[in-house]
Amino acid sequence: MRVFVASVGLTKIGDHWNKSLVDLAVEAGRKALSSKIEPDYLIIGNMFSSLAASQEHLGALVADSLGLKGKPAFKVEAACASGATAFHTAYNLVKSGASESVLVIGVEKMRDLEPEYVSQALAMAESAEYTQFVGASFAALNGLLARLYMHETGTTRDELSSIPVIDHKNAVSAWHAQFRKEITPEVVSRSSIVADPLRLFDCAPVGDGAAAALVVSERLVSEASKFVEVLSSSVCTNNFSIYERDDMLSFSSTREAFEKAISTASVPKGKISFAEIHDAFSVTGAISLEAMGFSKKGFACKDAAEGKYSLNGELPINTFGGLKARGHPVGATGIYQIAEAYLQLTEQAGENQVKGARYGVTQNMGGIDTTTVVHVLGSAE
Amino acid sequence: MRVFVASVGLTKIGDHWNKSLVDLAVEAGRKALSSKIEPDYLIIGNMFSSLAASQEHLGALVADSLGLKGKPAFKVEAACASGATAFHTAYNLVKSGASESVLVIGVEKMRDLEPEYVSQALAMAESAEYTQFVGASFAALNGLLARLYMHETGTTRDELSSIPVIDHKNAVSAWHAQFRKEITPEVVSRSSIVADPLRLFDCAPVGDGAAAALVVSERLVSEASKFVEVLSSSVCTNNFSIYERDDMLSFSSTREAFEKAISTASVPKGKISFAEIHDAFSVTGAISLEAMGFSKKGFACKDAAEGKYSLNGELPINTFGGLKARGHPVGATGIYQIAEAYLQLTEQAGENQVKGARYGVTQNMGGIDTTTVVHVLGSAE
Repeated sequence: MRVFVASVGLTKIGDHWNKSLVDLAVEAGRKALSSKIEPDYLIIGNMFSSLAASQEHLGALVADSLGLKGKPAFKVEAACASGATAFHTAYNLVKSGASESVLVIGVEKMRDLEPEYVSQALAMAESAEYTQFVGASFAALNGLLARLYMHETGTTRDELSSIPVIDHKNAVSAWHAQFRKEITPEVVSRSSIVADPLRLFDCAPVGDGAAAALVVSERLVSEASKFVEVLSSSVCTNNFSIYERDDMLSFSSTREAFEKAISTASVPKGKISFAEIHDAFSVTGAISLEAMGFSKKGFACKDAAEGKYSLNGELPINTFGGLKARGHPVGATGIYQIAEAYLQLTEQAGENQVKGARYGVTQNMGGIDTTTVVHVLGSAE
Repeated sequence: MRVFVASVGLTKIGDHWNKSLVDLAVEAGRKALSSKIEPDYLIIGNMFSSLAASQEHLGALVADSLGLKGKPAFKVEAACASGATAFHTAYNLVKSGASESVLVIGVEKMRDLEPEYVSQALAMAESAEYTQFVGASFAALNGLLARLYMHETGTTRDELSSIPVIDHKNAVSAWHAQFRKEITPEVVSRSSIVADPLRLFDCAPVGDGAAAALVVSERLVSEASKFVEVLSSSVCTNNFSIYERDDMLSFSSTREAFEKAISTASVPKGKISFAEIHDAFSVTGAISLEAMGFSKKGFACKDAAEGKYSLNGELPINTFGGLKARGHPVGATGIYQIAEAYLQLTEQAGENQVKGARYGVTQNMGGIDTTTVVHVLGSAE
């Protein structure tokens, strides 16, 4: 059974003090139901509503709120990869014939928590017994990783800034992005230190948001809507904690998930029109591009600085701003990427349109390459 | 693609002060890998490791701990139905051809939390904005439900005790059960009040435990192990909170999930050999039996008292003690039920064996009938 995305729905990412977790999920879900196809299943991607809202059981809760009482519904979680993992589950439900149409919603409300609790909630993606125990937050771990990356590859501070610079440029015309302002490498290197050498503008922000996609079987494809085909969906894992790995600069789960995804989709790497990558920190974006083979080891930031990854470059990345500028409401991020790929492949990306986009790749990550989910989507012929 | 269970693994349920959440998951997982079939996927069912162990991202964490680094892994959550929902996901991954063999592990560590925090963690299955806000715990909600049930149906206190009495009797010879001691209706009605009219022995206990099952495609069925076929897997939801429903005594999600499951499996109700039901409280067990049509409305407890549901009765239930006596480590319970059905259908149930067991039904519930998952399993021919 071939699997398609029939429609998508997004909320703006930012501070939604006046909306609950459920409000956001319903807002995105309703928009994704605009294609008038009735879903017979609901999957939620979310990481830490337990801490942020004292709420679990989001599947049934959002189903009832959306008027889908009775339908099967549950939550899927894989830390910051929860969104794409939920989409992966939906894809397989449709592929198996268990469902004709699955509504997938990724949602996270982060701004209700004080900053220290956000760090603590995110740290649940790492080992409580080892990593959390010594007080290492994700910013700290990525700071160490960035130091190692710069040392081993000779990447300079200004080069490291090149991915955030692309993100911010692309977000200017993205209505749903959290930060819609261009920056320069100087802005990055002058911003406050978060975990040396990482500065504020190297790090994805904290925000509330929800994104939805309606995943349907080929039987529901019609003229009534614009469809994008999901050509493959691949999940891989790595050693849980980064310090357990032989080579911390080799993202094996990204590499394996990507290779499996393009091989299943039968799309040669050279035919990919754009990639939405998981740049929670500038350094994770850089290593991801190298793991997928788009840049040689140590050259991702240099390539970015030279324009390879810009909107009009060889392989545009993060076409609506990526995690850094569009934003990173963790459990929703993977679905934002899918939705953005849908907009590109149906030529609804406005000023951000990648000309002649035919195949798009999305890469969503939990932990530092601990769980990676890669999707390949193609414009319906 | 037909789907089978190749093997199962259980830990004893109880106080595991010396074992972590991961230790328990690994213990059950290793046992389920005794069939020597290599899993190519891992799904975890768990409800509140975030609160109990400051840990999310259990998929990759347990995968790495089990030596399954690289394999796809994630967590599925639907409150107390997390276990069966994880199994449902595994079933569909195998059915879709996305996987040949999925290891599913349900795990919960509840005893590390103080009792008030257990209530709070469980209450996340209900609405934070409405139900939790007024301080209504699940015991309180079920107390109100039991009062209504007794009033509407004329069920007496001693009749209500009949399901816990069956549970405790069946658990005596179950090595993995939390409480292995027979009780009488008098013991129930003399035990301390939890939420009037419910008493201590009406309520499932708090315990740590993990259960695992290896779900495989028909291609892996061989002489090397004992296989049980998964004939259907069905998830339904109801209005999120019980007070939103027209009839609180009608468990529509149990009814619909059950009807869909037996119809998909093509197993007439009369051919079911035994049922593992979700009796988190004696009253939920009773209403569940009525929703599935095994007893007439208001007659489940009377039928139980008359022996219909005993091990040698017309339809044995909770053949290893059910939630009340085997125990209810929430995210694991649905997999305990599956494992117990596997033991029955492969004639490995020892003293608890249901003679000539051919078809078994498991019913696992999140909230009060909010999400219900029903599986029909059959002995492999």
